[in-house]
Amino acid sequence: MPKEKNVNPPVALEAMRHSFAHVLAQAVLQLYPDAKLAIGPVIDDGFYYDFDLGQGKTFTPQDLPKLEKVMKKIIAQSQKFERYEGGVDESIEYLQSKQQPYKVELAQELKAAGTATVSFYRNTDPAGKKRFFNDLCKGPHVASTKELGAFKLMSIAGAYWRGSEKNAMLQRIYGAAFATQEELDAYLERRKLAEERDHRKIGLQQQLFFIDERVGKGLPLWLPNGTIIRDELERLAKETEARYGYLRVSTPHLAKEELYLTSGHLPYYQGSMYPPMVMDDGTYYLKAMNCPHHHLIFQQQLRSYRELPLRLAEYGVCYRNELSGTLAGLLRVRMLTMNDAHIYCRKEQIKKEFAKVLEMVLYYFKLFGFKEYSFRLSQWDPTHADKYVNQPQNWEYSQRVLREVLEEMQVSYAAVDNEAAFYGPKIDVQFKSVIGREETLSTIQLDFLARERFGLSYVDEHGTRNSEVFVIHRAPLSVHERMVAFLTEHYGGAWPVWLAPVQVQVIMVSEKFADAARSVAATLSAAGLRAKLDDADETVSNKIRQAEQAKVPFMVVIGEKEAAAGTLAVRTRGGRQLQTLKADEFTAMVTKLVQSRAEQWSA
Amino acid sequence: MPKEKNVNPPVALEAMRHSFAHVLAQAVLQLYPDAKLAIGPVIDDGFYYDFDLGQGKTFTPQDLPKLEKVMKKIIAQSQKFERYEGGVDESIEYLQSKQQPYKVELAQELKAAGTATVSFYRNTDPAGKKRFFNDLCKGPHVASTKELGAFKLMSIAGAYWRGSEKNAMLQRIYGAAFATQEELDAYLERRKLAEERDHRKIGLQQQLFFIDERVGKGLPLWLPNGTIIRDELERLAKETEARYGYLRVSTPHLAKEELYLTSGHLPYYQGSMYPPMVMDDGTYYLKAMNCPHHHLIFQQQLRSYRELPLRLAEYGVCYRNELSGTLAGLLRVRMLTMNDAHIYCRKEQIKKEFAKVLEMVLYYFKLFGFKEYSFRLSQWDPTHADKYVNQPQNWEYSQRVLREVLEEMQVSYAAVDNEAAFYGPKIDVQFKSVIGREETLSTIQLDFLARERFGLSYVDEHGTRNSEVFVIHRAPLSVHERMVAFLTEHYGGAWPVWLAPVQVQVIMVSEKFADAARSVAATLSAAGLRAKLDDADETVSNKIRQAEQAKVPFMVVIGEKEAAAGTLAVRTRGGRQLQTLKADEFTAMVTKLVQSRAEQWSA
Repeated sequence: MPKEKNVNPPVALEAMRHSFAHVLAQAVLQLYPDAKLAIGPVIDDGFYYDFDLGQGKTFTPQDLPKLEKVMKKIIAQSQKFERYEGGVDESIEYLQSKQQPYKVELAQELKAAGTATVSFYRNTDPAGKKRFFNDLCKGPHVASTKELGAFKLMSIAGAYWRGSEKNAMLQRIYGAAFATQEELDAYLERRKLAEERDHRKIGLQQQLFFIDERVGKGLPLWLPNGTIIRDELERLAKETEARYGYLRVSTPHLAKEELYLTSGHLPYYQGSMYPPMVMDDGTYYLKAMNCPHHHLIFQQQLRSYRELPLRLAEYGVCYRNELSGTLAGLLRVRMLTMNDAHIYCRKEQIKKEFAKVLEMVLYYFKLFGFKEYSFRLSQWDPTHADKYVNQPQNWEYSQRVLREVLEEMQVSYAAVDNEAAFYGPKIDVQFKSVIGREETLSTIQLDFLARERFGLSYVDEHGTRNSEVFVIHRAPLSVHERMVAFLTEHYGGAWPVWLAPVQVQVIMVSEKFADAARSVAATLSAAGLRAKLDDADETVSNKIRQAEQAKVPFMVVIGEKEAAAGTLAVRTRGGRQLQTLKADEFTAMVTKLVQSRAEQWSA
Repeated sequence: MPKEKNVNPPVALEAMRHSFAHVLAQAVLQLYPDAKLAIGPVIDDGFYYDFDLGQGKTFTPQDLPKLEKVMKKIIAQSQKFERYEGGVDESIEYLQSKQQPYKVELAQELKAAGTATVSFYRNTDPAGKKRFFNDLCKGPHVASTKELGAFKLMSIAGAYWRGSEKNAMLQRIYGAAFATQEELDAYLERRKLAEERDHRKIGLQQQLFFIDERVGKGLPLWLPNGTIIRDELERLAKETEARYGYLRVSTPHLAKEELYLTSGHLPYYQGSMYPPMVMDDGTYYLKAMNCPHHHLIFQQQLRSYRELPLRLAEYGVCYRNELSGTLAGLLRVRMLTMNDAHIYCRKEQIKKEFAKVLEMVLYYFKLFGFKEYSFRLSQWDPTHADKYVNQPQNWEYSQRVLREVLEEMQVSYAAVDNEAAFYGPKIDVQFKSVIGREETLSTIQLDFLARERFGLSYVDEHGTRNSEVFVIHRAPLSVHERMVAFLTEHYGGAWPVWLAPVQVQVIMVSEKFADAARSVAATLSAAGLRAKLDDADETVSNKIRQAEQAKVPFMVVIGEKEAAAGTLAVRTRGGRQLQTLKADEFTAMVTKLVQSRAEQWSA
């Protein structure tokens, strides 16, 4: 699943962020006159600058407000940014005189690369008389600090000079910078949200999963709460796919080398696969994809045209040998459980099958309340035909029907040339997460090549073997790992009732009502709901607070009145008190919510 | 899961079977006077004899009735079996003169091993005058062919002399032999049943699974029909375990070497594990057991006594590096999906937890209609205390409570000393399959050692860390692979409605009723039933025959009358015609059967 790159910030914003870096350096030199400057580039959302404070000195968090204050003063002076050039040799001499060894090293490199003159940016007063700061720099910059927007220093980090641990450890200060205060505020808000909703943080709070070094970094262990969410998603997929006529299969997690030579995963994809295991009857690999196994199932018997489209579905486990350094939470793992399926169809069925898959995607998006999404149709390029499998008619036909599908569904999409896979066009489903991150949730991929590699065919209406089998790869719910990470962020841990690990927390006012509470919990459990009895020896308000923190959708408090009347005092997550309900009314209400997979409740 | 060895046949039966082998050899020499005799031992259910017919000659199936006829004549002669001994050298000379090179080789070996005299068994007429046959043989034999029971020659096979492919290929004839004709008939009946019900044969007929050499021998690919059965079993287990208070987890299929050094699987169990995979951050193994992962989950947080017993369940996938030559269908595989769980409890909870697991086992057995079963309690032996973990009080206490459990449940059991695992006593569940095979379906295992190896502990009522954590390993439904193989044999492919891949076959009398039939199928599907429309262009009787062969529980025929009245003509598997039903009555009836998981229906 490819990830969309962030679009580069516009030039003006880049110049502004770069200028903030110089202002920061100027401020640091005011507080630490002996600081040596390294580099200060622009990054997504802002800038950073690396400094050497000497003798292992480090910045402290208290430095950030101080530096911000100094920076604001500098900005208020309406300093000019003035570019000038100098000969490379005299510049090196100048930087040596200023005792800036890192800048000297950079200038010497430019010289070695054959550069004759280098550029500097100098900060002066508006009249250009008083010089405040000067930095070896390619630019561009704003003309004056008057043009600078809003900024905030975010954090301090250690960073090696040129990223190599053989070099000195420098002190890096990160800053956020935007054209307006509103944009900065929005960014800070998004960032706060992203931190609060980080799936690793919520995953730990809600006990969804954990990583254990004895098992390995990219191999999460799913705790009972997380397993409930996985299982519910799997049930959703199974129900939905059954409705769409999919057949479920279950395939082993390994295969012999021979299979991956047939599929072409060996040697082309070997770098992403786990190392081979030599057994007494051959060399085995853990599967990185489910397709070869599914193709064998298609091929296992003589297929009739009556069976097409044949849709084989499996929550298939795939293994990818990612570098350990890239593994992070659930977003990048080494074993993934994929909402996979392969559709085997005839050419004239492609359109309808794509339409049905897209319909399914939209159904899921509506269910989850994903609102910002779009589609991207990646096409071949006939002017680069050598990059693509040589079936021009199939390319043209299928791309045309895919565009028709997208248009008929009236969804927002972009058709992009020369971005298809070697073996067929695809539709990527892009969605923008609640914290503003653009993600490719899933890909629907047409495959012109599988039939050749695996010799797929069927018997058509005329009784002849027809090898025109088209394969659609699709995984609308992505993989459990990524999907649970997305949904954790999306809901911020406030799961809809059907996904909530605990749906109803039963709270008793005191030990006296233990039996009544236990009986309520048992009734709810017997109805198939996930009810939990909180029988800890604590106050009701503490128990409610804890249930609120755990984001349990419903709390039921059992005290004197409820035990006597056999009713329930129901409180929803977020603190709304529902009217007193009879146990069976409440059970029916929650059951209905669960069955309809409603995102929110109204009562 | 250890398998019970068959008890050896009693001496008399063994002598009889061995004598049949001699009679067979005598008969072969009558038909093939130049045949060279190799060996003729007793096996389970009978005997075999290996022959060299010379010049690549082989027996044909037509030889078997001929040989049987000759054997019967020999038996009718009331031949005597007469033992005599001879010096080893003269015996070798004698065998050479008879041109029996294999026998010469055997005698020479006896000589080389220091044997001075060897024994022969000679067949003579009742008076001992006429000699018919003589064989180098240790015995024992019956005194006369009059004592022989019933036999039948079963099959011919090729077999290398001494099992080595470097030697000559011999011709082996297998025979079945029992004391009485009734026993032989019962055996042949059982064997026929076993052949008819072989899970590989039914698995192919019903398209449950297949093996593909490009994937590997012990790695079945589950087809849609088999996946339905797996999924239904999994649903049964999940529902049942939820009712018993189990929590579900999901753990990765690999772990670093470190984990298996902690668990002790390395080095003790390494031979059964897949080869290691070296990744950029360590050495990884596919898991052979789920326990270490579950122990990490127990240990991942501070546990309170309130959480015990904690029952962690997972249909966990395990990988065992069996030799490729031992792999067979679903009974011996290299990747298995286990109905696994681990119960973490205190000493005083052991009894109740075992009782609950046994109750669950009995529930499953009743559901499946398994009737012949017993339990086997494997205990330590204090006189061999060095073979067992040194916790004498725990051994005595737990064995006592396990015996109490078995007695209180009033089940048939045997307590056997000195058969426990190193780390604790266990209860094996033995059942006798419908084809007479004795199997250990599952094992409930107490573990005194896990807490030490993994440092398991909990906080007790007094707020102190208590490391007295007992672990129960259990897998009542065994693994999917074995369970589906057992159930296939048990039901002979006539699955109860809840497990049947197709529950209702909808058959239309002619194309004219296609819409009505489609609508019935859609109604049944919408109710969650597995209905299949047979719209092939064939006669109704052919369609019914095919549905009968596929052992579909219900057939619904839609013709003129049904289409007009909106009713269904329902036929059950086995040919019973039910009264005409309204569609909703039938749907409700089948749904009820599915929900109750009834083995049979009555209507």
